[in-house]
Amino acid sequence: MTGIAELGAAEIARAISAGSLSAVEVTRSLLGRIDALDHKVGAFTAVVAERALAKAQAVDAAKAGGDALGPLAGAPFAVKNLFDVKGLVTRAGSSINRDNPAAVRDAALVERLEAAGAICIGALNMGEYAYDFTGENIHDGPSRNPHDLHHMSGGSSGGSGSAVAAGFVPIALASDTNGSIRVPASLCGLFGLKPTFGRLSRARTFPFVASLDHLGPLARSIADLALAYDAMQGPDADDPGCAQKPVENVSALLDRGAEGLRIGVAGGYFAENGNQEAFAAVDRVAKALGATRIVEFPEAKRARAAAFLITTTEGAALHLDRLRTRAADFDPAVRDRLMAGAMIPAAWVAKAQKFRRWFQREAEALFETVDVVLAPATPCRAPKLGQSQMTIAGTTMAVRAHLGLYTQPISFIGLPVVTVPVWSDGECLPIGVQIIGPAWREDLIMRVAAALEAIGVAKAPVAMLRT
Amino acid sequence: MTGIAELGAAEIARAISAGSLSAVEVTRSLLGRIDALDHKVGAFTAVVAERALAKAQAVDAAKAGGDALGPLAGAPFAVKNLFDVKGLVTRAGSSINRDNPAAVRDAALVERLEAAGAICIGALNMGEYAYDFTGENIHDGPSRNPHDLHHMSGGSSGGSGSAVAAGFVPIALASDTNGSIRVPASLCGLFGLKPTFGRLSRARTFPFVASLDHLGPLARSIADLALAYDAMQGPDADDPGCAQKPVENVSALLDRGAEGLRIGVAGGYFAENGNQEAFAAVDRVAKALGATRIVEFPEAKRARAAAFLITTTEGAALHLDRLRTRAADFDPAVRDRLMAGAMIPAAWVAKAQKFRRWFQREAEALFETVDVVLAPATPCRAPKLGQSQMTIAGTTMAVRAHLGLYTQPISFIGLPVVTVPVWSDGECLPIGVQIIGPAWREDLIMRVAAALEAIGVAKAPVAMLRT
Repeated sequence: MTGIAELGAAEIARAISAGSLSAVEVTRSLLGRIDALDHKVGAFTAVVAERALAKAQAVDAAKAGGDALGPLAGAPFAVKNLFDVKGLVTRAGSSINRDNPAAVRDAALVERLEAAGAICIGALNMGEYAYDFTGENIHDGPSRNPHDLHHMSGGSSGGSGSAVAAGFVPIALASDTNGSIRVPASLCGLFGLKPTFGRLSRARTFPFVASLDHLGPLARSIADLALAYDAMQGPDADDPGCAQKPVENVSALLDRGAEGLRIGVAGGYFAENGNQEAFAAVDRVAKALGATRIVEFPEAKRARAAAFLITTTEGAALHLDRLRTRAADFDPAVRDRLMAGAMIPAAWVAKAQKFRRWFQREAEALFETVDVVLAPATPCRAPKLGQSQMTIAGTTMAVRAHLGLYTQPISFIGLPVVTVPVWSDGECLPIGVQIIGPAWREDLIMRVAAALEAIGVAKAPVAMLRT
Repeated sequence: MTGIAELGAAEIARAISAGSLSAVEVTRSLLGRIDALDHKVGAFTAVVAERALAKAQAVDAAKAGGDALGPLAGAPFAVKNLFDVKGLVTRAGSSINRDNPAAVRDAALVERLEAAGAICIGALNMGEYAYDFTGENIHDGPSRNPHDLHHMSGGSSGGSGSAVAAGFVPIALASDTNGSIRVPASLCGLFGLKPTFGRLSRARTFPFVASLDHLGPLARSIADLALAYDAMQGPDADDPGCAQKPVENVSALLDRGAEGLRIGVAGGYFAENGNQEAFAAVDRVAKALGATRIVEFPEAKRARAAAFLITTTEGAALHLDRLRTRAADFDPAVRDRLMAGAMIPAAWVAKAQKFRRWFQREAEALFETVDVVLAPATPCRAPKLGQSQMTIAGTTMAVRAHLGLYTQPISFIGLPVVTVPVWSDGECLPIGVQIIGPAWREDLIMRVAAALEAIGVAKAPVAMLRT
């Protein structure tokens, strides 16, 4: 059973296409592993076994009938429970949303992965309304870090990180408003892609902050990440915010590696405010790539402050009616921040938006001098579950709000980022490095990540979990 | 002298090109008229006679040298005092901004008009920081309505309306955030063009609400309005918000008239909330065009409320430092609204912005059924100067905030509008009708306005002023 848990989506699809594995065999195996182990991990909030097996049978029937199979044929995946899955109530990590009717249609990205042959097997735990960096959930319990079950998976896409690291699925979908893909990728030791703002359709998902929400995949290899991304790319009439960009197949470009790319290392804010392990990981990646040039996103700290303001006020606008009528049903840690957000003057936010445009132009100028930029993904490895404070670079701060201190200034201006996992000798917990690109250049960051994976600097093993 | 005051810019340029008038003669004549009459009107806050005469001499020298002259050769114009004019301090109607250094370069649109041969002769009175619909200014005194000096010119571009109606200049530039071009055009009996949001460069002008500010011309004929607009069109590297749209010469399209266009009349909100004279003017225009179809901008009242929220909060953000340090130097009527704006929660504005996107889509759908829409420009003719309350359709309300009740929902979503002036027998004051088009279709609204002018339904005579 461990054998199948360790297979990537690309490997599964190849084996099924070659006839050496069946989709039903793969699906049953992973459903069994979830059944045996997820009570320890807490990754799933719903498993759709029947649906998954029906789809697996359809894949096997297509194979038997000699049909061409999709690039993700028979590869199971699961989604953060803010994606609509037909027949499930879309919780968005909350108790309140459980009163909503079940979804009548899958989210656009679920449909696209299934169109490529993948098999949706369930919905994943997450921080309430995605306002979280820990992966803890007051209603469903925490999604635990499979590499050490006493530690956080990171949030808000905690279940997505847990599920992939635990070998329950090779691919999970997640959302990233201020870092919710990249923080779990860093803490769980995975590859995570937050594409350019506007790149992937958000149709039929529960939002948080319209001007900051991104969707994307987590996986244990760059090949899988690229396959998932390629299957999901492209405009969508159901999401007017999704860019009208031509689809450029990134999978086909990965073997170009980092050759010829100008790679900068983020200095200033991104070289401070973290623990030694964060900088050591960036150093290791930079050395492997021969990157020595220090570049700076100016006023990154202010960018984070502005992102906070926009997040809490737009989030408050989204939840205003619920705050008025269902305040007691929120996680207090979420509710109190949204209530504060409901009282922030619009004039402050107008200034934050003005600064945002400035910061975006500065970043554009920076990317005229380099092709990608390296930065830490989190200031530290996974904190312990229940830990509310942490001390980073001599300052004690709240875990929940600060695990994203390096991710937040980047999503603020919608730049694409891949997080790659780095491991140190003698440490069972990993830490991630962000590879940041200019808008719409997922190809560049994915090539660099592929190069790091190829030389073994970045890797994402399945956690050792025993039944 | 009255003869030259009554000439349009196109006529002046033709006469100068033909050698029957000189630019110096025209400029001296209008400077003389301003000198003789503006103490009664209050249109100008600065006259740049020396600069204007130097430019006029250059035009005459070019003519004498056999050079081709621009389409506005020798035509004087003036600008609302929020446009930079080299050597003048850009007041934006305030006392506070008088402490700023003088502008070192003309606003982009001033440069473009001068490149077409026009002659800038001064800066015009306006409501403080453009937050006004009356044309009254606590520091400079009111800009009066030349058709009856006891009445308002309308604001905030009051001086622009006064100057053109008084025959001081054939063209004035102005800004329109919620109606500041269209209200003075209506009250002073002029043609006014508020182009599509993003159409004309705002470089080197003092802003009010970045997401609502439009610049445009006022004139006494559609030919002049079109000439000015054509000279100002086109992208500008100094204003990243200015759209990258190709220049389409509207002047060349005017003789197509309204033939074949589907013309709707705005019902609902736009057929209520006004005095009889406003609806009579729309009726007259509709009859002349054979327009009978009633169309509706749904939730227009809510659109106005949302525009108010965005205006006051973005305005407060712009002026926050001045409110903190110079509160006593504001016009109290402006200050108190900005201070209220500084305390409005961002979560409300986020909802207003969300509604705005909805309203924009509704308007787009409406313009699939008609090419232009007619609506009143103001709910009444010009109120008296000093009048703070007015009774409209049985409701008593503040003049300052409510003269724009028909303009505000339209600029809120950036649609292009021409206001055309309509006169009733036995009334010395005019009232305007808005001709509203879909985004980027200035050509359609200008054609309809030209048709109305051609049949005499819309006209903009110089006011009868005696020295």
